[in-house]
Amino acid sequence: MTEFELGSFLGCRQHSGNPLHRPRSDANGFRKAVLLGAPLDATVSFRPGCRFGPERIRTISRSLEEYSFPLRASLDTVDFEDAGDIEMPLGNPAKSLDEIERVCTEVFRDGRLLFMLGGEHLVTVGAVRAAKKFYPNLHVLQLDAHADLRDEFFGEKLSHATVMRRVLEEVGPGRLHQIGVRSAVAEEAALMTIETNYYQGSFLDALRIAVRNLEGKPVYLTVDIDVVDPAYAPGTGSPEPGGITSAELLEGIRVLGGTGQSGINLVGMDVVEVSPAQDPSDITSLLAARVVRDSLIIFAGGK
Amino acid sequence: MTEFELGSFLGCRQHSGNPLHRPRSDANGFRKAVLLGAPLDATVSFRPGCRFGPERIRTISRSLEEYSFPLRASLDTVDFEDAGDIEMPLGNPAKSLDEIERVCTEVFRDGRLLFMLGGEHLVTVGAVRAAKKFYPNLHVLQLDAHADLRDEFFGEKLSHATVMRRVLEEVGPGRLHQIGVRSAVAEEAALMTIETNYYQGSFLDALRIAVRNLEGKPVYLTVDIDVVDPAYAPGTGSPEPGGITSAELLEGIRVLGGTGQSGINLVGMDVVEVSPAQDPSDITSLLAARVVRDSLIIFAGGK
Amino acid sequence: MTEFELGSFLGCRQHSGNPLHRPRSDANGFRKAVLLGAPLDATVSFRPGCRFGPERIRTISRSLEEYSFPLRASLDTVDFEDAGDIEMPLGNPAKSLDEIERVCTEVFRDGRLLFMLGGEHLVTVGAVRAAKKFYPNLHVLQLDAHADLRDEFFGEKLSHATVMRRVLEEVGPGRLHQIGVRSAVAEEAALMTIETNYYQGSFLDALRIAVRNLEGKPVYLTVDIDVVDPAYAPGTGSPEPGGITSAELLEGIRVLGGTGQSGINLVGMDVVEVSPAQDPSDITSLLAARVVRDSLIIFAGGK
Amino acid sequence: MTEFELGSFLGCRQHSGNPLHRPRSDANGFRKAVLLGAPLDATVSFRPGCRFGPERIRTISRSLEEYSFPLRASLDTVDFEDAGDIEMPLGNPAKSLDEIERVCTEVFRDGRLLFMLGGEHLVTVGAVRAAKKFYPNLHVLQLDAHADLRDEFFGEKLSHATVMRRVLEEVGPGRLHQIGVRSAVAEEAALMTIETNYYQGSFLDALRIAVRNLEGKPVYLTVDIDVVDPAYAPGTGSPEPGGITSAELLEGIRVLGGTGQSGINLVGMDVVEVSPAQDPSDITSLLAARVVRDSLIIFAGGK
Amino acid sequence: MTEFELGSFLGCRQHSGNPLHRPRSDANGFRKAVLLGAPLDATVSFRPGCRFGPERIRTISRSLEEYSFPLRASLDTVDFEDAGDIEMPLGNPAKSLDEIERVCTEVFRDGRLLFMLGGEHLVTVGAVRAAKKFYPNLHVLQLDAHADLRDEFFGEKLSHATVMRRVLEEVGPGRLHQIGVRSAVAEEAALMTIETNYYQGSFLDALRIAVRNLEGKPVYLTVDIDVVDPAYAPGTGSPEPGGITSAELLEGIRVLGGTGQSGINLVGMDVVEVSPAQDPSDITSLLAARVVRDSLIIFAGGK
Amino acid sequence: MTEFELGSFLGCRQHSGNPLHRPRSDANGFRKAVLLGAPLDATVSFRPGCRFGPERIRTISRSLEEYSFPLRASLDTVDFEDAGDIEMPLGNPAKSLDEIERVCTEVFRDGRLLFMLGGEHLVTVGAVRAAKKFYPNLHVLQLDAHADLRDEFFGEKLSHATVMRRVLEEVGPGRLHQIGVRSAVAEEAALMTIETNYYQGSFLDALRIAVRNLEGKPVYLTVDIDVVDPAYAPGTGSPEPGGITSAELLEGIRVLGGTGQSGINLVGMDVVEVSPAQDPSDITSLLAARVVRDSLIIFAGGK
Repeated sequence: MTEFELGSFLGCRQHSGNPLHRPRSDANGFRKAVLLGAPLDATVSFRPGCRFGPERIRTISRSLEEYSFPLRASLDTVDFEDAGDIEMPLGNPAKSLDEIERVCTEVFRDGRLLFMLGGEHLVTVGAVRAAKKFYPNLHVLQLDAHADLRDEFFGEKLSHATVMRRVLEEVGPGRLHQIGVRSAVAEEAALMTIETNYYQGSFLDALRIAVRNLEGKPVYLTVDIDVVDPAYAPGTGSPEPGGITSAELLEGIRVLGGTGQSGINLVGMDVVEVSPAQDPSDITSLLAARVVRDSLIIFAGGK
Repeated sequence: MTEFELGSFLGCRQHSGNPLHRPRSDANGFRKAVLLGAPLDATVSFRPGCRFGPERIRTISRSLEEYSFPLRASLDTVDFEDAGDIEMPLGNPAKSLDEIERVCTEVFRDGRLLFMLGGEHLVTVGAVRAAKKFYPNLHVLQLDAHADLRDEFFGEKLSHATVMRRVLEEVGPGRLHQIGVRSAVAEEAALMTIETNYYQGSFLDALRIAVRNLEGKPVYLTVDIDVVDPAYAPGTGSPEPGGITSAELLEGIRVLGGTGQSGINLVGMDVVEVSPAQDPSDITSLLAARVVRDSLIIFAGGK
Repeated sequence: MTEFELGSFLGCRQHSGNPLHRPRSDANGFRKAVLLGAPLDATVSFRPGCRFGPERIRTISRSLEEYSFPLRASLDTVDFEDAGDIEMPLGNPAKSLDEIERVCTEVFRDGRLLFMLGGEHLVTVGAVRAAKKFYPNLHVLQLDAHADLRDEFFGEKLSHATVMRRVLEEVGPGRLHQIGVRSAVAEEAALMTIETNYYQGSFLDALRIAVRNLEGKPVYLTVDIDVVDPAYAPGTGSPEPGGITSAELLEGIRVLGGTGQSGINLVGMDVVEVSPAQDPSDITSLLAARVVRDSLIIFAGGK
Repeated sequence: MTEFELGSFLGCRQHSGNPLHRPRSDANGFRKAVLLGAPLDATVSFRPGCRFGPERIRTISRSLEEYSFPLRASLDTVDFEDAGDIEMPLGNPAKSLDEIERVCTEVFRDGRLLFMLGGEHLVTVGAVRAAKKFYPNLHVLQLDAHADLRDEFFGEKLSHATVMRRVLEEVGPGRLHQIGVRSAVAEEAALMTIETNYYQGSFLDALRIAVRNLEGKPVYLTVDIDVVDPAYAPGTGSPEPGGITSAELLEGIRVLGGTGQSGINLVGMDVVEVSPAQDPSDITSLLAARVVRDSLIIFAGGK
Repeated sequence: MTEFELGSFLGCRQHSGNPLHRPRSDANGFRKAVLLGAPLDATVSFRPGCRFGPERIRTISRSLEEYSFPLRASLDTVDFEDAGDIEMPLGNPAKSLDEIERVCTEVFRDGRLLFMLGGEHLVTVGAVRAAKKFYPNLHVLQLDAHADLRDEFFGEKLSHATVMRRVLEEVGPGRLHQIGVRSAVAEEAALMTIETNYYQGSFLDALRIAVRNLEGKPVYLTVDIDVVDPAYAPGTGSPEPGGITSAELLEGIRVLGGTGQSGINLVGMDVVEVSPAQDPSDITSLLAARVVRDSLIIFAGGK
Repeated sequence: MTEFELGSFLGCRQHSGNPLHRPRSDANGFRKAVLLGAPLDATVSFRPGCRFGPERIRTISRSLEEYSFPLRASLDTVDFEDAGDIEMPLGNPAKSLDEIERVCTEVFRDGRLLFMLGGEHLVTVGAVRAAKKFYPNLHVLQLDAHADLRDEFFGEKLSHATVMRRVLEEVGPGRLHQIGVRSAVAEEAALMTIETNYYQGSFLDALRIAVRNLEGKPVYLTVDIDVVDPAYAPGTGSPEPGGITSAELLEGIRVLGGTGQSGINLVGMDVVEVSPAQDPSDITSLLAARVVRDSLIIFAGGK
């Protein structure tokens, strides 16, 4: 680590000015990727603390190599920057979403790939609203233990438990794809059979089918870390026993990347709900960092 | 949560009088289920602390939905109550078992289903003694990493390491069914080939065979949480590497519930050996809570 | 502990009906005290988690004797009840304060003493609003490391950092008494010299002076646990080094109780900002429980 | 650390044979001191775990120097051995006390000084019984937050809460000296005014008076680590806020050692109730180790 | 546990003299096994703390039975001793390796089996240098998440990241066998295709192939605990998501032991990189202890 | 926090270029202060982990106000920058000291004030070497529980236990001032009476005397956080019971700042030995951050 890399992802150089208005490096033909933190932690119903997620993921990311052995490729080939955290007005989820939307809009306007670190799942709404402006036919792929499809939660429309209902309203029926869901209430279960694409069966099989269904469409990927079993990701607000392994999640990212033409057309993604206070050995933050590193190489690498 | 639900399982309403002598709700045809804590923690040989198990399981249970997505059913349909903890005379295992037997006898006398939270494994002896009075042909199904079949442990007859020997004496040879055992001493191994039904092979296959063997018989189910691998259940006194996953345990409960007529005829069950002090992310308590919730829906749900 | 005391303070009996509308025990001449939890955790700016404060304080309270050796008196003489937690609409501080005000109004209407467990400090606003209706000349005594006198915090009027500004508006200049404050910004420091009574010097000397000043006036006491040094109370959202010891806080409560006529005329009190996630040995919850136990004996004991 | 010092106190050499029957080194005129662990953990009412105390104290002791700067003396001058742990029959306090008595009797028979590491406070009974055989006029000096003078606790005569009642019966009225007690029930408070010497006032003043009172008498010292405030000793089963500091305890040991003739005539001592599971930074074990190291130098050093 | 077994593995008796020069028990035809700790912790790049590995593994080992149920054999049949820790000159990796080599040379000279507990992975170099003197055709089998094949790391030749490069130089191309590796940089990946035997595919299949390849050759086995997924082994310096389960590792040890003639010809082994500070529930130390126990029975048991 | 302040102290703006060669802001008459991290963690003998100190102190610093109430001044008036961490060649203390010396030389050459965050205590040697070049009559004031005056430690000249011996050699006899030392070996105690100024008595009295002795001399201040009692600073490698309180340390900094002309003439300072892994509630990092904030205001504020 050097004197200029305080706290950024994998030691990525930060820039002194506003990262969103700089000359782009697209000139050389690569797509530019932007990493952003969104430390929202306002509507968590059980164990709070995901506001510290982006910071901890960045810290722990330094224990990873830049080179991915399974991918036989290095982060060096990725033209990305860590633009820091989006400012979250304390205790005001609506304003926070507006701010996320504003910043992400700039990212998408420049044709850049978004990699966002939560924060609670609600942050996805801001990113999807921004993406929708530039990708009208946007599909959203959700890896999650919970459906998050309630209309209201404790009387509130904006909540970590309603986020995918809001996203569904944004993108429209048939454009939300759900994998890994193992907890939902009756209201959500009904919606899952009518308006969303819920993939049952083994996680990797489901992903392979989804990749085929999403062919040719712009995709926003949202990874709620609780899709993984609590043994592999204890550091999250609402853990749910019975999930996939870390190896399955990492293999899943490779499936989404595809081989040859068959991967998804990613426009942005997030990894959310990492809560360091419940993660004494940092293995949850580490897994999130690894998902982001691999995704950067796969979706933003020089190819 | 409301002002009346301090600390009860999934916010279940408590009653002001003695829960064991109230008018039963059987009138409507449903069987009544009773949840009881048995915080015995007297003979643990390595890491103590399971006395705090019932309390922590109740606390963490509030992070679960009442609706089970895999079962497509809700706890709302279950006519159960949380009757609190059985009082344990400190440092006197024998008296504690007597007290457990006394309370459980009342539960079984009313024809109600018992769901007991440990506490150390020894509590099972009290419950089985009570059940035996009403179900003379009682079979016991044990999911556990350890055989718990020693005759004595450090010179004591009543211990978490001898509990199943005492249970075996109670129900008689051939009526104890053991699945998941991966630690035993020579003395126990011998007994397992002669007097108990020890099912080898994969956990779920073993369960399916046991369900067939137990057809038509009254069954008491005891789940020692250490049947699960320490990665999924670190919070227990004597963890043993090499166990099953949380998904397998949850699927196992569904197997026991059966489809149509094929499930076991459950008269009572317990989940024991959860020790919060070794469970920094509460995932062990959470898994126990989930097992109880699913079991309540499966075995005590309105069907 | 018995089967009926799940999770209540020091095993206090809960009642089955609405605790706020029951026949009072005043008939026998004693004042009735009510313990209430207010698990608000919505505007904490640094480390969240005080929503779990009331529950943890109740749990740990069971490690205390009912008898106070320094006071030579027992909780047995106190006619109090634990009425459980006030329901907090998730993520809506304003509605939460309304609910607190509503419940506390009923407590004060009956002439009963209020003992409230936070939750974040903002809960004091609700209680003071209620008390003000019945005690127009209400004074508020604040033991706290922070002034909490900002007008706004991150653009919000209702926040743990503005709570005493709102209280000051409620009771009027000269009726807020502050002891222990060791962190404030310039805006607050100015206000402290003009509108509030800020007592400098040693903690116990300051308390003794305040007791004299408050003679004959109705007093609401609010104890932010961070008035104590982080060594004694690590489990709080915004610890501030350089505070008092636990012995000083406990002695301070006795000073407030006075000897003979000289104690304050307490109408209600709270202990707030206990955050169990940062309290691995539970010593912060324990100190809070002890403050409440001693206060119950001192202010609500049978004398 | 060398290949032969696994786990012993400050790396003290262990011996291969039975440590209790070896030729004594008294020949050279020094008194021999024996360190013993007594990991009893059977009657703790709240947080168990002190069975791991002796082991953890030994481990952490290696972070201390052998040389004490305040004492200007080194452990090198002390002729002591670490004889390991006394075997505790699991779950049988009475048998455990017999075993402690048996081993300590051998220690006292040889005229050696005893230094015992608990384990729960009950272990003191065994040591005092042994000491009484050789020192009929034995006085016991207790540094403790709790009186431990109940006659029964949960119906049991042998308990961490009754230990000093049993000790009082052993040594007789007027021979038990109590300092630091800040928690007791009415029954105990009565006894403290009649049969024991309870020293009020500041800790160090009380100690100085006790030293004078104990002049010329054989003294057994028992240090319950909870005499110290939970901030300094969080790792204990029943912490009690409002205690002394670590500096006061260490200074207290020096006061007991005296200057010139004025110190107590120590025949044995213990440090009990250290519970590593509640001691995440090991500062409680460290304090206990420091108390033992300083006591060894003061009371068993070559002078 | 008895008075003579302070801190040794599974309570194994320690000896008073130099364990390396004692009369061997080979006379009875059994091979003698020696357990040694090597608490080196000097070049760890991310999370330090493995210096406490040997001590913690020994402590936790006492929670295991001496009898292995899967193996139907007991540690009683194994003629082994725990010779304690090798002294590590602080902050001097080169001298530490010399010391390890010196001690291990004596072990191998006597024809005894070595079981070494790390400490960081670098300790393997010392043991392999010693083994090479007596087994010129030595092969090394490495179970590890990382290749550890760099030539230099931060400018240093001796590091936990270069250890296998040094081992490769020692044994020569073709004699290093690697299984489980899922993290490596380009430089290492190149070497893995040329000079080492890197087994891809499932862990157990790879092991079975390796056993065949290693037939008739002397084998040193090194187990870096991070070959296991962080869910099963969080307590390690550089965890890497996506590893095997604890059940697979334990089954792997049985595969290496073979059935009949087909097992490997083990001359020594180590388990390294266990770091207790990141292992709040001790499940990593426990897994390491179990691997050692099973290995002792399999490779050093009396058959 | 904004998008540009990732991980810096109290959100201080970082600069894009090399912070050591930028145009200075001295033009306006203020002295410039530079904050630097020195995460060396190579020679710690007991509990490692202080390499994570600078990062954690920065993170926790954000919970502090910029305004100091006791000082009635704000960090806003301080012209300082956070220049990040000095790169530490892994496992090579000598090279690390060279690098620290090189960077600090540039700081002192520009006449700027140095504020350095450790890392282990050894880092002080590098800073003192640099300061000595520009301040030949440099005095060093050490607040520490340990003398750190050994000539060698485990055969090494450069160690956390020898650092002040090296500093003493650098500045010469009579120019090292030690306060708070409560642990030392005989060799060190001898040196303390001959060559260093060791101030006994109460911490604050000692400081006041030292301030007078240091009048008119350039002073480098080194604060080993273990000067504070483990209750207030558990997160350190070698805690020593019996230290000062956090309030005393903070008051001590104010004493050093003086009133009017009487403060010391500080040229640089460090706060070292903060080890987050042993600091579960972050109170040690918080205290270190508070010491640095107050020192910045006192010694580098606009006056």
